[in-house]
Amino acid sequence: MQDIINRLSRIVGHTNCLSGDDLREKYDHDITGSYKGRSLAVVRPASTEDVSKILALAFETSTAVVPLGGNTGLAGGGFAGADGDKIILSLERMNKITSINRQSRLARVEAGVVLANLHAAAEAVDLVFPLVFGARGSCMIGGNLSTNAGGSNVVRYGNTRALCLGLEVVLADGEIVNLMSELHKDNTGYDLKDLFIGAEGTLGVITGAVLKLFDKPKAYATAMVAVADIASALEVLHRLQAVSGGAVEAFEYMPRNYFRHLQMVDASAPMPFDKLADTAVLVEIATTNAQHATAGPDGKVPLVALLENTLVALLESGQVLDATIAQSESQRTEMWRQREMAFEVATHLGVSLTTDVSVPLDKVDAFLNEMTARIGSVAPKAEVVVISHLGDGNLHYSLWVDPENPGQVDEAQKTAIYNLVEDVVEKLSGSFSAEHGIGLAKIGSMARRKDKAALAVMRRIKRALDPKNIMNPGKMLP
Amino acid sequence: MQDIINRLSRIVGHTNCLSGDDLREKYDHDITGSYKGRSLAVVRPASTEDVSKILALAFETSTAVVPLGGNTGLAGGGFAGADGDKIILSLERMNKITSINRQSRLARVEAGVVLANLHAAAEAVDLVFPLVFGARGSCMIGGNLSTNAGGSNVVRYGNTRALCLGLEVVLADGEIVNLMSELHKDNTGYDLKDLFIGAEGTLGVITGAVLKLFDKPKAYATAMVAVADIASALEVLHRLQAVSGGAVEAFEYMPRNYFRHLQMVDASAPMPFDKLADTAVLVEIATTNAQHATAGPDGKVPLVALLENTLVALLESGQVLDATIAQSESQRTEMWRQREMAFEVATHLGVSLTTDVSVPLDKVDAFLNEMTARIGSVAPKAEVVVISHLGDGNLHYSLWVDPENPGQVDEAQKTAIYNLVEDVVEKLSGSFSAEHGIGLAKIGSMARRKDKAALAVMRRIKRALDPKNIMNPGKMLP
Repeated sequence: MQDIINRLSRIVGHTNCLSGDDLREKYDHDITGSYKGRSLAVVRPASTEDVSKILALAFETSTAVVPLGGNTGLAGGGFAGADGDKIILSLERMNKITSINRQSRLARVEAGVVLANLHAAAEAVDLVFPLVFGARGSCMIGGNLSTNAGGSNVVRYGNTRALCLGLEVVLADGEIVNLMSELHKDNTGYDLKDLFIGAEGTLGVITGAVLKLFDKPKAYATAMVAVADIASALEVLHRLQAVSGGAVEAFEYMPRNYFRHLQMVDASAPMPFDKLADTAVLVEIATTNAQHATAGPDGKVPLVALLENTLVALLESGQVLDATIAQSESQRTEMWRQREMAFEVATHLGVSLTTDVSVPLDKVDAFLNEMTARIGSVAPKAEVVVISHLGDGNLHYSLWVDPENPGQVDEAQKTAIYNLVEDVVEKLSGSFSAEHGIGLAKIGSMARRKDKAALAVMRRIKRALDPKNIMNPGKMLP
Repeated sequence: MQDIINRLSRIVGHTNCLSGDDLREKYDHDITGSYKGRSLAVVRPASTEDVSKILALAFETSTAVVPLGGNTGLAGGGFAGADGDKIILSLERMNKITSINRQSRLARVEAGVVLANLHAAAEAVDLVFPLVFGARGSCMIGGNLSTNAGGSNVVRYGNTRALCLGLEVVLADGEIVNLMSELHKDNTGYDLKDLFIGAEGTLGVITGAVLKLFDKPKAYATAMVAVADIASALEVLHRLQAVSGGAVEAFEYMPRNYFRHLQMVDASAPMPFDKLADTAVLVEIATTNAQHATAGPDGKVPLVALLENTLVALLESGQVLDATIAQSESQRTEMWRQREMAFEVATHLGVSLTTDVSVPLDKVDAFLNEMTARIGSVAPKAEVVVISHLGDGNLHYSLWVDPENPGQVDEAQKTAIYNLVEDVVEKLSGSFSAEHGIGLAKIGSMARRKDKAALAVMRRIKRALDPKNIMNPGKMLP
């Protein structure tokens, strides 16, 4: 073991091969608090060549390697266990934005670039990299790619996978695969890029990427909309997509009791409607057209008028019950703050458990109805709050087993609830992990619920690319 | 051999197991005329279960299988060789559109659905499946997916890969893998779907798919635009994307001599400009907003006015030299007819060779300049015509070696020209096969030019999923 640490030190330098306990705490504990362990060492390469040398050494010595970005994952994918036998390979020093190209609308980055830093670099030239979620200030591009991260803008721009044209990957034996394509069309062989994206470091280490950039919107129009039901919400989504030419940037479901809980946390939060509706959505559309973003002679911003007119028409036809359109940037910010307080709302009141599932768009209603009918069988006193990226069919179904005694929950009951949620999801051809991935947290579900033939194909690919099973072993594949 | 044919007949019925020479002609010859062969038999399954049984038999007997859709591929991917030892597995009877779902904007189809039939079914409910190219009347969805087909609308909707949410695949040993997801977010394991898409049938047979549908545009605005140079053309593209919110549906490069040749084929074709420019583009934007599609009180259609105003501004700043906007559907149709005559223009005059390459958007100019400088070294009298899906950086660089003697071309010279084109493409980090795939036609380029490490990964995956090498052997992988 000490020999391996010495050899790693020679590759990256002593200060970048951490094996003292206190230094490693930051890497050996995860943000959910579920995983606390002990790695053999934390190694911080400065270049792809360093990564290659580290993996060659790991391969030679059959030492397991756990790649790590910003350590913000929610499924334990970056956890190195408690046995002190695995290397954490932190990409944090490979944090260079190599280029931002306005003519081709592309960025070339190293894997350790913090997402928010790429946001800033793109915005500096009036472009955006549209992947956005809470952890943006510390998560890294390599981790975003390895977990195919989602977030609020997927309805418009797709998952991380859809934002990537090219990759650089180092394989288990240290071989570097150059897939750093800047091409929009390239049919020369298997789509290896998408195989490594979302593989959670089990097939190789992503060290660099070519990412798509987009015109920065010149204005947003944002509203809280109360709707008759989920089917009406989807009609609102489709209508807004049609009138805006697919410019719906976010479409977030927020049910009545979410607002009620929000008020418990923050009594001063303004409510969007006089009378809260059972079903509401936070909707945002955007424009990159300067004229549509600028108030005309009538004082109205065309984009806002478009949103307003569409909602008025839907109000008349009964799908929309009420709506509040943000009249200023501060009102817009407040709407988003209320949405982004989801984590705070949950933790403040000690949510018993939360899930990350998805169903087909036309099955969201069925999912919610069936859960309402069946949750009492496993949690008679449960209070449920669902936050959902409704535009993608992605639901975070969360609950308090006993709202009178928040925080009290027994593991057997927790398991029963997870199983029920996953049973309903499976019946509706949904996914038991929509955006957070498998890691360690969902490995049991993977064993029980993934299509057996698909799982067998995954195992064959894993064996073919990582024959010694040193790449993030024990993760993703049961 | 006869035993295999008998067993195949028992699976699909005698009338669907063809082994008479005349019956097979349709399957054993390809549309380019380059490949004429002889298969052991042509088998036409009616269901996924049939496909599974056929492959189980093939696996047991180590018989090679060549999956075939509409037989419109341009790279010989569906060719079963001349040895009479391979089965052609035609998906044509699996031609059912299982469902078209407006609420979730999805279609479920069998692999043998003809693309144009899916177009019609989607349009019947006011939606579109936006994959469009010349062979749409006979090509099939399974083939489109297996080759990750491109076409003119990629700039807006992406390649076939981007249009697919779910797949059903039968593996080499007959195992059925159900990846028929209708989910927009699903992070449960490796992205197997994208591995089979574009694999040209070398990893399994695609038997079904879940495909995305989109709102049908309510109006198009189309123009021929003469620009100062390629950099100006890209500025036109970016400006139009910004003002339209990414609604550029097509952006096709058409150089001066293309129009000159077009007139040789069709003297009555109206020219878009009084004075032909070196560089022109056919551009089309679309809207799904009824109001933008309808003439206002001033008699102007807002979408057309948007295109016009944008082009006028670019005319004033010098990037645009001249422009003709289609004032009627018939003028629009004529513009597209002129673009789609590319194949006729080339064949009428006996083009010596054509290519299908791509380069990064900001390298198109460099590619054209370097080719102009160097083509004389291998073809001193050459006349070049380039048609390009410029919005994707995809160029079909075609030439007559000797315009005085069209059709005269010697194989060694042809090879020298291909090599030169590919050398220049490689230098610019481009692709030697942008949308047509590898098949047999590009297998040599694959061996010479594909990243060696990527090729090795491909081979490992191929061996893992098709250990007996019976799935379309000899294709794609050199």
